Amino acid sequence: MTTPIRRRRSDGRAPAPTSGRLRVGVDIGGSKVAVLVVGEGDSVLARKSVPAASSEPDQAIAQIAAVIREAVGEAGATMADVAAIGLGVPGRVDAATGDVTFAVNLGWQHLPLGRRLEAALGVPCVVENDVRAAAVGLHRHEGYRGVDDLIYLGIGTGISAGVVLDGRLHRGVRGMAGEIGHVVLDPDGVSCACGLRGCFETIAAGAGIARAARTAVEAGESTILAATTDPTAVDVFAAAEAGDAVAARLVDRAAAAIARMVHELVLAYDVELVVIGGGISRAGAPLLDRIQAGLARIAAPSAFAAELLAETDVRLAGSDHDIGTRGAIALLDPLAKEVVAREAVG
Amino acid sequence: MTTPIRRRRSDGRAPAPTSGRLRVGVDIGGSKVAVLVVGEGDSVLARKSVPAASSEPDQAIAQIAAVIREAVGEAGATMADVAAIGLGVPGRVDAATGDVTFAVNLGWQHLPLGRRLEAALGVPCVVENDVRAAAVGLHRHEGYRGVDDLIYLGIGTGISAGVVLDGRLHRGVRGMAGEIGHVVLDPDGVSCACGLRGCFETIAAGAGIARAARTAVEAGESTILAATTDPTAVDVFAAAEAGDAVAARLVDRAAAAIARMVHELVLAYDVELVVIGGGISRAGAPLLDRIQAGLARIAAPSAFAAELLAETDVRLAGSDHDIGTRGAIALLDPLAKEVVAREAVG
Repeated sequence: MTTPIRRRRSDGRAPAPTSGRLRVGVDIGGSKVAVLVVGEGDSVLARKSVPAASSEPDQAIAQIAAVIREAVGEAGATMADVAAIGLGVPGRVDAATGDVTFAVNLGWQHLPLGRRLEAALGVPCVVENDVRAAAVGLHRHEGYRGVDDLIYLGIGTGISAGVVLDGRLHRGVRGMAGEIGHVVLDPDGVSCACGLRGCFETIAAGAGIARAARTAVEAGESTILAATTDPTAVDVFAAAEAGDAVAARLVDRAAAAIARMVHELVLAYDVELVVIGGGISRAGAPLLDRIQAGLARIAAPSAFAAELLAETDVRLAGSDHDIGTRGAIALLDPLAKEVVAREAVG
Repeated sequence: MTTPIRRRRSDGRAPAPTSGRLRVGVDIGGSKVAVLVVGEGDSVLARKSVPAASSEPDQAIAQIAAVIREAVGEAGATMADVAAIGLGVPGRVDAATGDVTFAVNLGWQHLPLGRRLEAALGVPCVVENDVRAAAVGLHRHEGYRGVDDLIYLGIGTGISAGVVLDGRLHRGVRGMAGEIGHVVLDPDGVSCACGLRGCFETIAAGAGIARAARTAVEAGESTILAATTDPTAVDVFAAAEAGDAVAARLVDRAAAAIARMVHELVLAYDVELVVIGGGISRAGAPLLDRIQAGLARIAAPSAFAAELLAETDVRLAGSDHDIGTRGAIALLDPLAKEVVAREAVG
């Protein structure tokens, strides 16, 4: 499990594998960088989190390298003890080179993150999209042993899905598999940042829920959200819990869309487990109840849908804050390496 | 390529592999049974087609066995020369046992088709869903060399998709992957046989188009379809070509739904090739033009959709009548065997 990852590099050379026994997982989010350091048997040696990575590349690399060094230091070790580092990034990643092609929420474009960090830290780095990394992490997680076909549905500011089929991460030919945030659920819906109308994201992602709340307030609807300047999705969930009818309508609409997409994903991929993560999953049981109610409404008139959904385990990732970092570490698994290798020779 | 397939049988024994060099592909459709016999290098030795298989199991087995024997006879050979037989069936198939669980259009339920034919013919038989078989066939077809990620979208009476990812048939945990005929595109649409409303099938499959035509005629709309008793999808396509506005509207609606589903499938799976087959594909260029127009409408406002769709090859299977039988033969390929083996030990 601690075999260092060797990848083809654009310069043809990979850093020499270290003899280190530690592995480091880094989850780069829109608002923070989280680091997890594990030793033998995945024992957690250190956990560290700092505010957001800079949108300025040099500064971002320096920040990320620094927090990794600090976390490794807190684990009582040095970089020489680290076998490899996995990083999850919210954006489009070339898994073969470790380059971040495009990370809209971070403001990065064509940033050779993996190579820059390898140069800075002298340790092999594997970079992958954060949602895909989380899917790999869930697959390797002891809580889901025996489940080889699962989807991690990441619902935050935007939405995308990480797909594990037959135990392997499915990236697709352009590394775009699971970009289901832009499936059009309502052709007459509001316009999406992508240019289309009524994309899944516009209904169920954080930004979409916040926008719908703003629209409701501006339309003069009677809601406690009117008292909040620029209500966020978190405000909307809180208001719905407090019994606000407008907020409840928006949450129900998001939950119904999530249920519809779960049904759609199960029809398309036939997986047995769907884990809903990302910012929205912190809404917890009230959200899951509403999603389950949406699934029940789909199953009620259809024996076919009922059979399929009854056999599908739908959960919230909830408050497990290590999903991202554990997923990044899972990228270092020899099985995950296969996928990276396929990309490299493709 | 002629290695006989050995599968785990419910009785624990497989027929002894023959030394035969011929392979036979059987495409069992709602209205006919087609057989293709090939020799070395996939050379076609015989091609035969007879009217529909009976819904009565004993009669169906006898019919299918008879047409296989006849086709092999026409190839100047006997069953002893046949290495293995692949069969594609429009329904739910247990690929491990070769049993047809449920084939609604054939009226079969729990028919041990593979085992019955093995007993009757003394040759190993592999049975798979017809659309999945076609997808495997396309992947092995010389016209698509180098394409390892494709979807065969079978649009006939109903709709389902056969999915090849990274060169392997993706069946899903319950063998239901690609059952996208029941993705809800219009929650307020007409009711589907599955119990839901506005499924993709109700808009784009043959039965859905025919039903919409009937509804238009009954509503007294001005259309030449009113002159036809019980117009079929074929009648609707012909009327649209003849300039009938009502028929054109129904075809456009079906084409727009197909375009929307192609976009959705490409977002979900990120394949590079989508081949549209089944009865609808015989509508040819006029249909493909309408589907391409639908894709262009999706791409127009969205750089993201435009990029993805520009790189996706969307074709009609058209008049290649061997797709089903070649697909069935492709199931005998050692690579396809892997998938069957996975099922058998799963």
